[in-house]
Amino acid sequence: MKNSPKHIVVVDLGGTKILATVINLNSEIISRLKKSTNPKDKNQSILNRIISTIEDSVTSANLNMDSIEGIVIGVPGSLNPETGIVNLAPNLGWKNFNVVEPLQNHFKKRILIENDANLGTLGIYKYELNSKCKNIIAIFVGTGVGAGLIIDGKLYYGKNYYAGEIGHIKVKEDGYKCGCGNYGCLETEASRTAITRIINEHIKKGEKSVITKLVNDTKVIKSSTLKKAIKLKDKIALKAVNHAAKELGIISGNLINLLNPDYIVFSGGVTEAIGKYMLPIIKENAKKASLKSNFKSTKITISRLKDDSATYGGLALFISKN
Amino acid sequence: MKNSPKHIVVVDLGGTKILATVINLNSEIISRLKKSTNPKDKNQSILNRIISTIEDSVTSANLNMDSIEGIVIGVPGSLNPETGIVNLAPNLGWKNFNVVEPLQNHFKKRILIENDANLGTLGIYKYELNSKCKNIIAIFVGTGVGAGLIIDGKLYYGKNYYAGEIGHIKVKEDGYKCGCGNYGCLETEASRTAITRIINEHIKKGEKSVITKLVNDTKVIKSSTLKKAIKLKDKIALKAVNHAAKELGIISGNLINLLNPDYIVFSGGVTEAIGKYMLPIIKENAKKASLKSNFKSTKITISRLKDDSATYGGLALFISKN
Repeated sequence: MKNSPKHIVVVDLGGTKILATVINLNSEIISRLKKSTNPKDKNQSILNRIISTIEDSVTSANLNMDSIEGIVIGVPGSLNPETGIVNLAPNLGWKNFNVVEPLQNHFKKRILIENDANLGTLGIYKYELNSKCKNIIAIFVGTGVGAGLIIDGKLYYGKNYYAGEIGHIKVKEDGYKCGCGNYGCLETEASRTAITRIINEHIKKGEKSVITKLVNDTKVIKSSTLKKAIKLKDKIALKAVNHAAKELGIISGNLINLLNPDYIVFSGGVTEAIGKYMLPIIKENAKKASLKSNFKSTKITISRLKDDSATYGGLALFISKN
Repeated sequence: MKNSPKHIVVVDLGGTKILATVINLNSEIISRLKKSTNPKDKNQSILNRIISTIEDSVTSANLNMDSIEGIVIGVPGSLNPETGIVNLAPNLGWKNFNVVEPLQNHFKKRILIENDANLGTLGIYKYELNSKCKNIIAIFVGTGVGAGLIIDGKLYYGKNYYAGEIGHIKVKEDGYKCGCGNYGCLETEASRTAITRIINEHIKKGEKSVITKLVNDTKVIKSSTLKKAIKLKDKIALKAVNHAAKELGIISGNLINLLNPDYIVFSGGVTEAIGKYMLPIIKENAKKASLKSNFKSTKITISRLKDDSATYGGLALFISKN
């Protein structure tokens, strides 16, 4: 068993899976382990599942818990990293839930929590952009749309750690109802969920799409399926993805006008799979929606870190707190 | 002549006027002097006009230039406060123009320049909110719509000092052409110019408005005229102002989602005149466009500093640089 260099475990919590990654302090990823979760699981059973995923990931890295210095948990929800309390994580059913305390009691190690988009943003800032600029916005496009902001070299939280709720920015006056209760949120136009809805609207109208052949149930369309459909130049997939990319472009232009950032970086399942196709459309629409001088200042890119951005962010967070 | 406490002059440049205010370091305003400018004036004649307005304001304060410690110039445009160079101030016809050097040569005093919205924001933050929070957005509604941001207690500039261009955030897909060349910018829906256009559209359709009796030419409607028309419950003025307030509310909601600020403060001619009427509409629409938790965190107010926010901001800036 290796004991040097020291390691940490970064856990990325989703609504349906727990991904635990063992990474050493030289930023080398040692092992990844993914377990599914049951959406009906309650607090304690989710916690038990997190604990077993962490322990199994360490075993699969051929290490023991003694060589783990700490654990960082990325949570899809609003939380206070100082108190360790998750205010609200709808996909996990957590509300005012202290996730740090029971894990600290179990592992007797330093446990940090952070919003998952913030972790990803920090990873991109530190390990992809090498902290060589001051202000960036990272936009995560998957089931929903989230964002993290680095302002003046630091994660920006806002008053109550609620900043970055880009998915709920209103972009359509008479838009679809969003999970949040409002109408016309960016998420209802530009997420994988939105792309899936648009594709199904066309299919319902009797238009033909290769997607009906690629999946059994068109209600669930993965990013990998979108990638195949785009490659096959499926008209309906192209329409839906073009629409999402246009909306992501307009929001990028608006952010460029407001914040004059160094970078807007896209990450998350959708742009990981089809970001190359989307990027020119995003840029074109960002250009149309922003002042020339502002547009020229900001680079718009797709992250190269893919699924690992949160892991690298967890490492950066852990190092910064030690 | 008084020589103590020390004084500075803060100059607020507009497209049609120069306002010079003498203020002492105890934040007492001693005198205000306004001169009109000719839009056809070139660089040197605008500079001469600025110089004479400053000198006359000092005389009218019963002071001489010896008791003036420095001068702060608020410029309606993009500029670099470090180099003193105005990149672009369309209303003044300035492009890559160093405004600090000639004034420094003339006055032999410390000259600072800053974007006018930034000065106003700083004034509101320091002298109205007493720096008792960390993150605010000030939105200035007049001929156009501008904004300044305080992030972590400091003016936020972005990469090239271009941040805060809120007036050019795209809010309508097929909107009106804006002065910037793009379509559907916030300015085309929520500024005094936009309100004036909407009122004229209704008048053209043959609808009756008291405004035709209040002004000779409805192409120019001042904020004070809007105030009278709103007081008289003029239906057309109400429609136009309601629309602007709704758009300002939606953008506020979006900013609340993105930045989770302590305050959004409205200032500028329009909200100074009819902000009391507009505020409930702004709040209602901000609430509809933001997440509950985020909305609850942010106070939305109308500034009490009115025309003096930039003057107080100039004082705060001067003190911070000394």
